[in-house]
Amino acid sequence: MPVACPELPDLVPVPGVKLASAAAGIRYKGRDDLLLVELAEGSQCAAVFTRNAFCAAPVIVAKQHLAISRPRYLLINSGNANAGTGDPGVAAARHSCGELAQKAGCATEQVLPFSTGVIGEPLPVERIEAVLEKAINGLSEDGWATAARTIMTTDTVPKGVSRVIDLAGQQVVITGIAKGSGMIRPDMATMLAYIATDANVDPESLQVCLDEAVEQSFNRITVDGDTSTNDACVLMASGAAQMPMLSLDQPAFKLFSAAVNEVCRELAQLIVRDAEGATKFVTIRIEDGVDSEECLRVGYTIAHSPLIKTALFASDPNWGRILAAIGRAGIKDLDTHCVDIALDDVWIVRGGGRDPDYREEAGQRVMSQEEILIRVRLGRGSACETVWTCDLSHEYVKINAEYRS
Amino acid sequence: MPVACPELPDLVPVPGVKLASAAAGIRYKGRDDLLLVELAEGSQCAAVFTRNAFCAAPVIVAKQHLAISRPRYLLINSGNANAGTGDPGVAAARHSCGELAQKAGCATEQVLPFSTGVIGEPLPVERIEAVLEKAINGLSEDGWATAARTIMTTDTVPKGVSRVIDLAGQQVVITGIAKGSGMIRPDMATMLAYIATDANVDPESLQVCLDEAVEQSFNRITVDGDTSTNDACVLMASGAAQMPMLSLDQPAFKLFSAAVNEVCRELAQLIVRDAEGATKFVTIRIEDGVDSEECLRVGYTIAHSPLIKTALFASDPNWGRILAAIGRAGIKDLDTHCVDIALDDVWIVRGGGRDPDYREEAGQRVMSQEEILIRVRLGRGSACETVWTCDLSHEYVKINAEYRS
Repeated sequence: MPVACPELPDLVPVPGVKLASAAAGIRYKGRDDLLLVELAEGSQCAAVFTRNAFCAAPVIVAKQHLAISRPRYLLINSGNANAGTGDPGVAAARHSCGELAQKAGCATEQVLPFSTGVIGEPLPVERIEAVLEKAINGLSEDGWATAARTIMTTDTVPKGVSRVIDLAGQQVVITGIAKGSGMIRPDMATMLAYIATDANVDPESLQVCLDEAVEQSFNRITVDGDTSTNDACVLMASGAAQMPMLSLDQPAFKLFSAAVNEVCRELAQLIVRDAEGATKFVTIRIEDGVDSEECLRVGYTIAHSPLIKTALFASDPNWGRILAAIGRAGIKDLDTHCVDIALDDVWIVRGGGRDPDYREEAGQRVMSQEEILIRVRLGRGSACETVWTCDLSHEYVKINAEYRS
Repeated sequence: MPVACPELPDLVPVPGVKLASAAAGIRYKGRDDLLLVELAEGSQCAAVFTRNAFCAAPVIVAKQHLAISRPRYLLINSGNANAGTGDPGVAAARHSCGELAQKAGCATEQVLPFSTGVIGEPLPVERIEAVLEKAINGLSEDGWATAARTIMTTDTVPKGVSRVIDLAGQQVVITGIAKGSGMIRPDMATMLAYIATDANVDPESLQVCLDEAVEQSFNRITVDGDTSTNDACVLMASGAAQMPMLSLDQPAFKLFSAAVNEVCRELAQLIVRDAEGATKFVTIRIEDGVDSEECLRVGYTIAHSPLIKTALFASDPNWGRILAAIGRAGIKDLDTHCVDIALDDVWIVRGGGRDPDYREEAGQRVMSQEEILIRVRLGRGSACETVWTCDLSHEYVKINAEYRS
């Protein structure tokens, strides 16, 4: 049951980017599980991958291909992560790229493979290959909504966002899709996101733009720096829009970058809203820290605490648990007398102790909402960071205990 | 439902250490909730406290008193943690020490206060003071079993261990009790442990002995370096045994230290066995690491993973989750091709990939046990560390969501 998840909006086609979905029967029956993305000649592509040491075979291959060539195709499957599959897994990923390249008329290195699904099972390459021809023939700029469904695994809703912005008189589209059901299912090789634009962006600037956007979005929802074996986020720029090339130092780049940020943040929040068993969407804002790093440390400590997450599930304003989490976040020389805690606009702790004006009913009222802001002021600087998380419910245990069985 | 928790064994009295329990009605009705411990004149006392920045009032006071004086009394209450109570809380803790000192005829600084229970409520000092006289009159060397019950909060079983060892022909007793229901309830100010011996130990060596023992026991069960606001562990040596003073450089000290280690490890494991909602007792052993630190990092990453914990609950040998946890533990330059994973004696992963001989039934068999060993070989050194944890069950969410309501 996603928390206040909007319907999939109309996803605006991106000139120069075509998509096709197909049913390869990799694991699921009666649904599409293979997504092919074609980029117009001359497109630029930036990517961010998992930092997990056990990164999946497609991640290894995609990184290699990206380093030596300019991508023309993304080949994405759901149902099987091709992770924990060793060298045969790498060979399988490479082989499927080769097959596509041959059929589409490009070099193998111009294909980036991505997989999401169960870890540890061999990728059924032949099933993928069997539908490649059909997928190539079905490529269309209108395939985004279908694509958002094709890449789903345990997601309960498809996730996509579009923005159309004006860059010096030229309309530019940014459309993105993502899959990921909560931040917590690495054995489903959790997160994939594909964002495309028709803007014309120089490659270095595109990578900077993606790095910054990911840092402020997908990296703000991971619950313990938790990167799964397959996490990947790709930003593609077809350059089909008639405009001079955007680069870092231009004012228009800031506008473009802000829009990419927005798209990524919305996709990231959709992943939290669709988190396994989630009944609450929780924003944790840490203010007045010395630097970003310590704000994040406090934010993550709160976000990871199973005690706080169960209290959120129970709508219990159990501020002692928040206090204890801040206290153990490892902030050097924290003066607890300067710490304030609020739920939405209700101040519970002031100066390290219970606010004398605080009434349990007020805290209770906020905690019973579906969307909750936990606000912490560290009182020692001017840095501020925000992370997003959800509660820990009976349903979470049920889903994760019973999965695979 | 504790996991294979033995009955409270006979706890051997420690010459020179007297205990008394009383019912002060601090929070609980019809049970003892105040424990008084008296140490014979000349006793030595070592202690380890929480590193939580929001440490409780009694922790602040106990540290101060310990720094300036040699303790004669420990004054311990359950039901109220006196944490998150600000300066009035500190005054309350100090005041109760003063009252006891006056009645018992010692200096205020010779009393160490400890509290465990709900965070954020004022300590009802007058209720404690009302039973001090009675407690003093009831002091006896036989009070250990009752004491183990007195300090319980959400514990479902009392926890105690005794060892009698021979140190150069002299019998020496080590008896310890602990409270803590799982590593995960900081709002119940989780863990307290009191270990006493009649050995004659010099104070510096006693502290070294305790530090080492805690590091290998209570610090190996915390799930995320999670220290609650009130955690404390005290090692008391009355010196009543007829023996020369033990100190670090003597062979007999090693024997003594090993016995204290054993007592602490057993108490720590009892806390995990009594963890909230636990149905499995899990030992995680990380071998062949470069150093202790990286072994612990991998061990804790596995121990904290809600995904692995729910798989343990479901008896699901979901090794992809273990693999992913190792991969994201942040081990620098980890060669995944050298990583092996076993459940008990069943090797699942060898050389970073699924062992070709592994059969799901074998993994399933181990996972269905009540006690499980997860063994990881990093294949890059000779360090080895062990941590203990439990699974994450429906019951855990239930207990922690419904607590306080």
